[in-house]
Amino acid sequence: MTLLVVVPDRNNDKLMMKLQQLLPQYNVVLWREGIDCSEVTFVLAWNAPSYLWPQLPKLLAISSYGAGVDSLLKQSLPDVPIARIVDPQLADNMSDYVLHAIGYFKLRFSQYQQHKTAAIWKPRRAKTGTHVGILGLGNLGQAVAKKLSSVGFSVSGWSRSEKNIEGVCCYAGAETLHKMVSDVDYLVCLLPLTPQTRGILNQTLFQKMPIGSVIVNVARGEHLNETDLLAALDDGQLSGAALDVFTTEPLPTEHLFWQQPNILLTPHISAVTNIDSACGQIADNYLRIKLGKTLCNQIDQSLGY
Amino acid sequence: MTLLVVVPDRNNDKLMMKLQQLLPQYNVVLWREGIDCSEVTFVLAWNAPSYLWPQLPKLLAISSYGAGVDSLLKQSLPDVPIARIVDPQLADNMSDYVLHAIGYFKLRFSQYQQHKTAAIWKPRRAKTGTHVGILGLGNLGQAVAKKLSSVGFSVSGWSRSEKNIEGVCCYAGAETLHKMVSDVDYLVCLLPLTPQTRGILNQTLFQKMPIGSVIVNVARGEHLNETDLLAALDDGQLSGAALDVFTTEPLPTEHLFWQQPNILLTPHISAVTNIDSACGQIADNYLRIKLGKTLCNQIDQSLGY
Repeated sequence: MTLLVVVPDRNNDKLMMKLQQLLPQYNVVLWREGIDCSEVTFVLAWNAPSYLWPQLPKLLAISSYGAGVDSLLKQSLPDVPIARIVDPQLADNMSDYVLHAIGYFKLRFSQYQQHKTAAIWKPRRAKTGTHVGILGLGNLGQAVAKKLSSVGFSVSGWSRSEKNIEGVCCYAGAETLHKMVSDVDYLVCLLPLTPQTRGILNQTLFQKMPIGSVIVNVARGEHLNETDLLAALDDGQLSGAALDVFTTEPLPTEHLFWQQPNILLTPHISAVTNIDSACGQIADNYLRIKLGKTLCNQIDQSLGY
Repeated sequence: MTLLVVVPDRNNDKLMMKLQQLLPQYNVVLWREGIDCSEVTFVLAWNAPSYLWPQLPKLLAISSYGAGVDSLLKQSLPDVPIARIVDPQLADNMSDYVLHAIGYFKLRFSQYQQHKTAAIWKPRRAKTGTHVGILGLGNLGQAVAKKLSSVGFSVSGWSRSEKNIEGVCCYAGAETLHKMVSDVDYLVCLLPLTPQTRGILNQTLFQKMPIGSVIVNVARGEHLNETDLLAALDDGQLSGAALDVFTTEPLPTEHLFWQQPNILLTPHISAVTNIDSACGQIADNYLRIKLGKTLCNQIDQSLGY
């Protein structure tokens, strides 16, 4: 019953220590090239190499080390259940990020930072629009909706399946998308990345949005057509974009986003997995599998999230 | 019974129209050089020239066209009651500004904007500190406290006289100031400008604050010792400052604040008087004086606010 931790290219000391503390009688092993994986029953994975998966004859379950599983599902995986991290702190952090990214454009901080470089004093009232549309009403989308409502924003939400959330005007299904975005001041993407949602933030959608509206992408870089965004910012269809995720991360130094003044660009920090909270869930799932129970926060592989 | 509007150096068309609409039977006059002021009973003033005041033999009352009266009280005024504008929308706008100015530093948007200019990808978690100290617990300070509490900040407040505000840890009197600021992550100045509060944001205070804390000044430029702030930012005692007010406005182009990367600099836009709301209060006070009643939102000239 070995728990294998496969989170390459970062310091995992704290993660390993926490897991070992929570599972003192069990074998918790940090993956490295060439390690014997024949006794591994449970894998904790983030950016695991694809050649790992055929080497795990006794594998019973996989846990993603994060809220998203899209990069994991791109790989050819053994037929075992997969869990993801559902961290209330993560939802809190995400809500803070979205709230303040919207505030950054609502208060025109973006413009004032540009004026500052040229010592320009040009007062304008804050933007008055308070209508936020949220794409994706899962755990994170609902937390963001709640926080935004609590400070006076009016919130609409859009999801694949019908939802009923207090204080949120809910739309469901592909055919309602353009209607939902038609009068938003801010559009937040919190969708899972699936074949249906890849590239959903594109020119066609931007043109259905009010002139001068703002997008916030905190889901995956692949949700956004980057060329379409640059065009929409250049011609004023959109007045700004807060981007925390990119098709290629780290964002290459030559990428045009770095130079676009109306982009608030952050390096994938809107929801960083909290080690304490995540380790509790991972250890719990490890023990559940050992006892033959189902995983907590198990994803539906046919839906992709 | 003439109402004289003295708000020089700006377009007052909308203001005049609104006031005349609310007071259709009365004489509302826009001040200009050389005008006959002998019948003026009520003055609405913002940056009025000091030579105006001796020309008003029938004056009964003055209304400031804003929440602050400090610049008015610097002048030698006739002995009449003075009102100020207390606008709930103003308090809302101020709360939004303070919330998002704090968010700008909490989420490290300030740093990421600096990194962006050099295409640097350097992820760091958002700052975790959530303790905000508010100097001044009047109308605006209380509104800000309420908004910050509602999104999870813990709020302490400091005022001249004792206050008891739900959810706010209240300090009163000069001797408690250093204690209050000793463990804040963010310190917001919303004090009236008086001889006691002038220069209150100075090196002595900054040194009592935790290293790396942030100040937000949305009161008056004269609350802040500008030289001390630059030193505190340079040596890291403070990690940032959001400044909406300045000793000289517009801020002179050669001022060092324009070049300090850790200052969020905005051109006095945190609470712009709403014409509709203000005109209602001005017209009401004009009628009250006409009927021999006391002013609403009358200030205490001995306190200076």
